[in-house]
Amino acid sequence: MNNQNNQNHQNEPQKRRRYVVHRPKQQAGSAAKKAAVPAPSAPQPVQRRPRPQDQKRTPVRIIPLGGLNEIGKNMTVFECSNDMFILDCGLAFPDAEMPGVDIVLPDFTYVERNKEKLRGIVITHGHEDHIGGLAYLLKKVNAPVYGSGMTIGLIKHKLEEHGLLGKVSLNVIESRKTVKMGCMAVEFIKVNHSIPGAMGMAIHTPAGVLVHTGDFKVDFSPIDGGPIDLARFGELGSRGVLALMADSTNAERPGYTQSERKVGESFERLFAKAGSRRIIIATFSSNIHRVQQIINMAARNGRKVAVLGRSMINVITTALELGYLEVPKNTIIDIEDMGQYPPEQIVLITTGSQGEPMSALTRMAMHDHKKVNITPMDFIIISATPIPGNEKHVTKVVNELLRSGAEVIYESMYEVHVSGHACQEELKLMLALTRPKYFIPVHGEYKHLVKNRKLAIEMGMPKENVLLASIGNVIETDGVKLQIVSQAPSGRVLVDGLGVGDVGSIVLRDRKHLAEDGLIIIVVGINRASNRVVAGPDIISRGFVYVREAEELMVQAKQLMCHTLDECSAFELKEWTSLKAKLRDALSDYIFEKTKRSPMILPIIMEV
Amino acid sequence: MNNQNNQNHQNEPQKRRRYVVHRPKQQAGSAAKKAAVPAPSAPQPVQRRPRPQDQKRTPVRIIPLGGLNEIGKNMTVFECSNDMFILDCGLAFPDAEMPGVDIVLPDFTYVERNKEKLRGIVITHGHEDHIGGLAYLLKKVNAPVYGSGMTIGLIKHKLEEHGLLGKVSLNVIESRKTVKMGCMAVEFIKVNHSIPGAMGMAIHTPAGVLVHTGDFKVDFSPIDGGPIDLARFGELGSRGVLALMADSTNAERPGYTQSERKVGESFERLFAKAGSRRIIIATFSSNIHRVQQIINMAARNGRKVAVLGRSMINVITTALELGYLEVPKNTIIDIEDMGQYPPEQIVLITTGSQGEPMSALTRMAMHDHKKVNITPMDFIIISATPIPGNEKHVTKVVNELLRSGAEVIYESMYEVHVSGHACQEELKLMLALTRPKYFIPVHGEYKHLVKNRKLAIEMGMPKENVLLASIGNVIETDGVKLQIVSQAPSGRVLVDGLGVGDVGSIVLRDRKHLAEDGLIIIVVGINRASNRVVAGPDIISRGFVYVREAEELMVQAKQLMCHTLDECSAFELKEWTSLKAKLRDALSDYIFEKTKRSPMILPIIMEV
Repeated sequence: MNNQNNQNHQNEPQKRRRYVVHRPKQQAGSAAKKAAVPAPSAPQPVQRRPRPQDQKRTPVRIIPLGGLNEIGKNMTVFECSNDMFILDCGLAFPDAEMPGVDIVLPDFTYVERNKEKLRGIVITHGHEDHIGGLAYLLKKVNAPVYGSGMTIGLIKHKLEEHGLLGKVSLNVIESRKTVKMGCMAVEFIKVNHSIPGAMGMAIHTPAGVLVHTGDFKVDFSPIDGGPIDLARFGELGSRGVLALMADSTNAERPGYTQSERKVGESFERLFAKAGSRRIIIATFSSNIHRVQQIINMAARNGRKVAVLGRSMINVITTALELGYLEVPKNTIIDIEDMGQYPPEQIVLITTGSQGEPMSALTRMAMHDHKKVNITPMDFIIISATPIPGNEKHVTKVVNELLRSGAEVIYESMYEVHVSGHACQEELKLMLALTRPKYFIPVHGEYKHLVKNRKLAIEMGMPKENVLLASIGNVIETDGVKLQIVSQAPSGRVLVDGLGVGDVGSIVLRDRKHLAEDGLIIIVVGINRASNRVVAGPDIISRGFVYVREAEELMVQAKQLMCHTLDECSAFELKEWTSLKAKLRDALSDYIFEKTKRSPMILPIIMEV
Repeated sequence: MNNQNNQNHQNEPQKRRRYVVHRPKQQAGSAAKKAAVPAPSAPQPVQRRPRPQDQKRTPVRIIPLGGLNEIGKNMTVFECSNDMFILDCGLAFPDAEMPGVDIVLPDFTYVERNKEKLRGIVITHGHEDHIGGLAYLLKKVNAPVYGSGMTIGLIKHKLEEHGLLGKVSLNVIESRKTVKMGCMAVEFIKVNHSIPGAMGMAIHTPAGVLVHTGDFKVDFSPIDGGPIDLARFGELGSRGVLALMADSTNAERPGYTQSERKVGESFERLFAKAGSRRIIIATFSSNIHRVQQIINMAARNGRKVAVLGRSMINVITTALELGYLEVPKNTIIDIEDMGQYPPEQIVLITTGSQGEPMSALTRMAMHDHKKVNITPMDFIIISATPIPGNEKHVTKVVNELLRSGAEVIYESMYEVHVSGHACQEELKLMLALTRPKYFIPVHGEYKHLVKNRKLAIEMGMPKENVLLASIGNVIETDGVKLQIVSQAPSGRVLVDGLGVGDVGSIVLRDRKHLAEDGLIIIVVGINRASNRVVAGPDIISRGFVYVREAEELMVQAKQLMCHTLDECSAFELKEWTSLKAKLRDALSDYIFEKTKRSPMILPIIMEV
């Protein structure tokens, strides 16, 4: 461990960066003057000899393993000398190109190879794209985990499911508290987001201070816990931030993200509109502030609250235990007791705001829920925006709910949802407060990272100081330069059932081929001794055509295979690899000519 | 043919409906008064004896075969006595539930069964969801086709591709002209939409006048051809409209749809912003007005226009031939000559605004286009909004274009696209003009139809006079009542390659199963004479696991199959159906226990 650097980093604040928009003209380009006149807000350096601002220091490496050029599976490794820690370990959800896959994890190879350096894992907040990979990682490497109370509460549930509870050190860290990670130290800083207990991180390293915002927004009137700790971000900026890594999710959106309280105002209007009907509200289970507002509104309107959906119940239970949720006495009732109250005295909070096929709301819509039957006496609010890719699922659920005669509020004009991510003006505020020397946009597709870069450049940051990185890049900075120096193993690991990583690109390619065109199997039995066909050929198809309606085609295909085999010499019948190719090519050509389709063709030769 | 009715319908205007919002109070409910005092704008009835407004007449049947509770494959049959005609015959695009399917057609069974009644096919406009099924229908039944010049021009291309050109009577009909369909007559009425030559239809029937808007919007400053013929819709309303069928696509959106000219204003700003860069604009090929604006802007800025994408070239060629597009001399250049001009003198119009995998823009983005290479000297405008389901494709294309250093304009804030469909205020305008007795919302998912119904009810239409119908409903009206009387065959017919209808629900179910979990094949050779296993069992998998990494699992699976076969009695080896089930169940249980996956398991027994 590099003890000298470890001590230095806390005593040596960097000089204030001066490239921000309003820097006084007379100072531009005057290095000597800069060194002579410390910035007013910067504290006096402790050490005797003033050192030049750009002196090289022990380099720190930043290795994003997920969350860049993609949505989800956020994970970043920070490394300095012999110490390493991980910031977040999330999962991503599979897209249409990954049929059958349950979840997608980052590639942990780099961490496994360097596990003796690993000092800990810090988690910014408890969303799946930040904690969903943790249990899988902890099965490979063990390290203490640090997060806010809410975050650790949610992680406990995860670890329990994976049988890891008690095997991992879980530590609750408050805002403005610091965790030592060998020669580095991670300071937690409160931010606003769509889940309680969200934190940004200031990473104090021998090379300088790195700030990672995590997912954040600026909410001056949040439901609890107060606004983001802008003062601390500003203080860090005054002392000198080497690099900022900021959430790019909403970098395409101009203006400010609205306060969570806005949703409460909408609920107020909608509760009045619902009148004597039962109110059903679907939202993200982790949005405890939303749930709090629903509960408050219900209590004020003399309605009881019932909760549906496994994840919703889990999160609400955790939030109640930890004091993140306050519920007036006798407000929450068991779903089983719902029948004892008339519709106008009920609010039902449920999962399924994304139209997830197995969720409570979807099952209600499909008349497939044991406990809830949708009728014209229901007033349903979908308090969420469809995540790209989920639009059609949500539409399907809305259509079915409407068919049951319920009123459904789902359009953006009702303002029943606000984002948890910073829009352009908030991103600029973060840049203005932290005034980093370097900027690395994170969390987003390439287009989001590009937009976030653009904001920084518009604010006066030199182009060359903004880095658009990719996962696996090893970004090194010694306080003077910041650059990509090498490449670490990175990518995606697919989880399908119990299998982690056994579904790869070949399996996915086959699945897609089977999905698009189906399959034809040709089975032939050959006697190895005589090199003669003794069974078949038989033809079986699945997912290709409905055979009863294409009998002629299948009969002709079989004749073709018989004919192809008949023409084979005894030698050809011995060389099974080329025999298979011959059968495959003949059948493939025939099928394409007749149908313009290319099913997977699978010749199987049995030794009899 | 019912000649009497045929003559009557043009001479007997119905009385003005009075349910609209501002109806004078004193007239409400006074049937006698209504009959005595004709509405001021209604012409005097021609016949001697005034007949009561609600006298029953020869019934007309409306049979939607597509476009209700779905987006696309719009098709409606109108039938009266011994006469029938079809309005539109579109296709739909497959969704994620239909892997491998190329296009989706309406079920034509009802038309085929009644083809001796078929008098003709009228087409509202030339979009795929209105003409894309026509060639398939015309292979089954022949009938003259009627449409605007642009519509017929586009249909010609379609029929040519299907080898039908010259075999079908194609007829160009101008706005306000009428086509006789036996005892009915169809009047074409100009509307605005995102393609030239779009028409609504007034269907004059013995039972009364039915108005079908087709796809429409109200554009007071369209690029050519003038605004929608509101006067004619109003005139029909004054004389009495029995039922209105109106486009519901945008019924969720408040306000008015913006004029196409708005996009021209945005282009003006963006052309200036592009500076010396090459401009590439992707849009829908059929949006000739958009193309016209691009060409005008290019000419004004001294830029040449090159065109890319097969459908774009087809449509532009048709539009030029028919005079729907005006191009200043020497403005359009061949794509091959593009290299002779500097970037600042080029505008490239291309397909691919939906991120379609094979489109020109996608291929450019993926560096897979022979003629166009994207560089930082490109300024790319995606002049379209992603259709639900296409968001991820478009994002992928945008990311890749940005990676090449190009600037890409795709966000809604740049206003580079306007919709072709009426928003709520326009829908109300149509209702206010036509004042129908009955209202049938069409073209949309259930949620859109519900919103459109709501508008009508808010305007004062009695709830029971708005019909939310489904495809296959036989809706009958005799001028007094309008109701669903029976059910016609309806649904979807899938086209995959050359096969029309041979991919059905069983094939799709298999394809989805194969896609999600892959497949395991067990092959066994059994000697029928001795009832002994003489070959195998062999196990082959595809899309399940990468076998090299799961060798142990596959070896154990094979052992299990050997063991299962060993345990079978000679009798069991004779009963192949139950033997297959036994093998399938054993393997399925084993695989699920080991992997929590359920691949398709296909036991194949060969007779040796």
